[in-house]
Amino acid sequence: MSLRSEIADQPAVAARLIDQGSPAIDAIATRLAGRIASGEIRYVLIAARGTSDHAAIYAQYLFGQRLRLPVALAAPSLISLYRTELQLGGALVIGISQSGRSPDIVETVAAGRRQGAPTIAITNDPASDLAAAAEDVIDLGAGPELAVAATKTYTAELLAIALLVTALRDALGEHAAAVADRAAIDALPPVLTAALDTEAAARDLAARVADRNRLIVVGRGYGYATARELALKAKELARLSADPYSAADFLHGPLALVEPGFPLILIRLSGDAAADMDDLQARLGELGVERIVISDRAADVDAAEAGLVYPRGLPEWLLPIVSIVPGQLFAMHLAIARGIDPEEPRWLRKVTLTR
Amino acid sequence: MSLRSEIADQPAVAARLIDQGSPAIDAIATRLAGRIASGEIRYVLIAARGTSDHAAIYAQYLFGQRLRLPVALAAPSLISLYRTELQLGGALVIGISQSGRSPDIVETVAAGRRQGAPTIAITNDPASDLAAAAEDVIDLGAGPELAVAATKTYTAELLAIALLVTALRDALGEHAAAVADRAAIDALPPVLTAALDTEAAARDLAARVADRNRLIVVGRGYGYATARELALKAKELARLSADPYSAADFLHGPLALVEPGFPLILIRLSGDAAADMDDLQARLGELGVERIVISDRAADVDAAEAGLVYPRGLPEWLLPIVSIVPGQLFAMHLAIARGIDPEEPRWLRKVTLTR
Repeated sequence: MSLRSEIADQPAVAARLIDQGSPAIDAIATRLAGRIASGEIRYVLIAARGTSDHAAIYAQYLFGQRLRLPVALAAPSLISLYRTELQLGGALVIGISQSGRSPDIVETVAAGRRQGAPTIAITNDPASDLAAAAEDVIDLGAGPELAVAATKTYTAELLAIALLVTALRDALGEHAAAVADRAAIDALPPVLTAALDTEAAARDLAARVADRNRLIVVGRGYGYATARELALKAKELARLSADPYSAADFLHGPLALVEPGFPLILIRLSGDAAADMDDLQARLGELGVERIVISDRAADVDAAEAGLVYPRGLPEWLLPIVSIVPGQLFAMHLAIARGIDPEEPRWLRKVTLTR
Repeated sequence: MSLRSEIADQPAVAARLIDQGSPAIDAIATRLAGRIASGEIRYVLIAARGTSDHAAIYAQYLFGQRLRLPVALAAPSLISLYRTELQLGGALVIGISQSGRSPDIVETVAAGRRQGAPTIAITNDPASDLAAAAEDVIDLGAGPELAVAATKTYTAELLAIALLVTALRDALGEHAAAVADRAAIDALPPVLTAALDTEAAARDLAARVADRNRLIVVGRGYGYATARELALKAKELARLSADPYSAADFLHGPLALVEPGFPLILIRLSGDAAADMDDLQARLGELGVERIVISDRAADVDAAEAGLVYPRGLPEWLLPIVSIVPGQLFAMHLAIARGIDPEEPRWLRKVTLTR
């Protein structure tokens, strides 16, 4: 089973990326820092699709919170469909793609480079078109990913972004803060290993919800990327209609969907988003919703109808890399419980060549 | 019924905004054009939630295609949750909110203004906090919107963006193109009136799918905003689990959900996205999907299992303002067919004060 082994491989992939990827990432940061400090780089534009788009959402929070840099998520069809090349002056252009082969992502990065904007490819294939198009390449080095559903390349993409932002912070003169952040990153691999221990509980939870045909997943702040990615895994692997929301947008309409007994997954992380999620969890309880909580705090899960507890101890900004692991295991076991082979999602190909 | 009358009011709201809103919008464009031409404004940052976020998606395509300006959709929780004020140098900051009362949207615009960035509020309440926070205000002038589900303020937001981009194009020296675009906008109100004639067909379509509990809505390019907004209306009004996708992202995973007899709505617009949508419509037919097509081309609907035809004749970039109208009518009748009062979506309030 390549899916299960790729999920289990994530601690080793992370350790390798931290160890072997850091010198290249530090060098990129050193080159870019002056262009940020001078105001030449005003914002970040990221082109990505599918799972990689969820890594882009993580980048939006991390670049924003750590470097105060706004992040725009590109609409790649502007270039592929409407043949419009955006004016990318002032942008740092980043393309994120496991395969590096999505033509619209490649074209967006190539346009940035043609215009003289700094460009970075984050990819698992340093020989790909995307890597060739970009001035700088961050090689995820995750090894071949054979399962159609991306798992280890997703957490590697998040980690690459965390390393890049931390290196930029250092290069921009926030040395002490960067050292503390880097120490937190170095502590990540064993936490990922411990997160794999949620498998038995994830299998039990999957058995509990296997007969449902719709599910809502809600996250807030740094938890939003995990909500998006878990919903996508549930769809690809278990063919369950799973709808992701930020907690704020959820209150703007989709709340009307819920009713007593309706299953709703809350992605929870210790930190600044916790108080709002406490309120939402309590309100959903009053409405009789079946709350399934994925959290690093056992008390959150104890206060809900069901859930999974992943290891605590990391700062909020790193928890997206860990909180998806129980979600991956849950989605895989949900597929198995529904009699579906999670290795071969129907109708899908590993590489989708969207124009 | 305020919802039905607000839907029916859209042609009059559009005519009034074109007539009475244009002078203010033209004046804003004249002031901003020099700052765009000089490179002071490098990109647009839009803060919006819920339905207004779908207007922001429309803006992403229109600013991109017409002015080559990248658009970043803000993550308002960066400021409200993580107390991070982004560096907004180089940005034109736009806040979009019907009520003008969402604190996180107001704070994002206020931050832009404090930093000296040009700021615009697009709102239906020129006395709101959002209007006070922004340097410039575009008053939608849509009259009171009493139904919880936004309809006439959504199409007014789209139209305000179309007027602003067209005025900017003119002020930037593309006079002939702007005159042609403006003539297309002037032709909009009677097309909106004709779009209301889809109501009987929308009621029949609602009866056909009333017993379903999940639905997928797919759009591409300029059709994506309509897919998002129709899915939200189906959720708020009819409590149907409706999942929206861009056609490109849909092929990256969610395609695994479909099976013979599964209902899927395709939002179709004549123009550059049509060829890709032809391919997708044909592929879904091979998979036995029940294709429900909303299009300005009768042939698209004839080639599907069911659908709605809205009036043709407008250019693709204006069709998002029209293509949502049959969707609003469909969602309203879907609620009624499911025995739900569309005037009072449960658990929701008209104004959601997300921090």
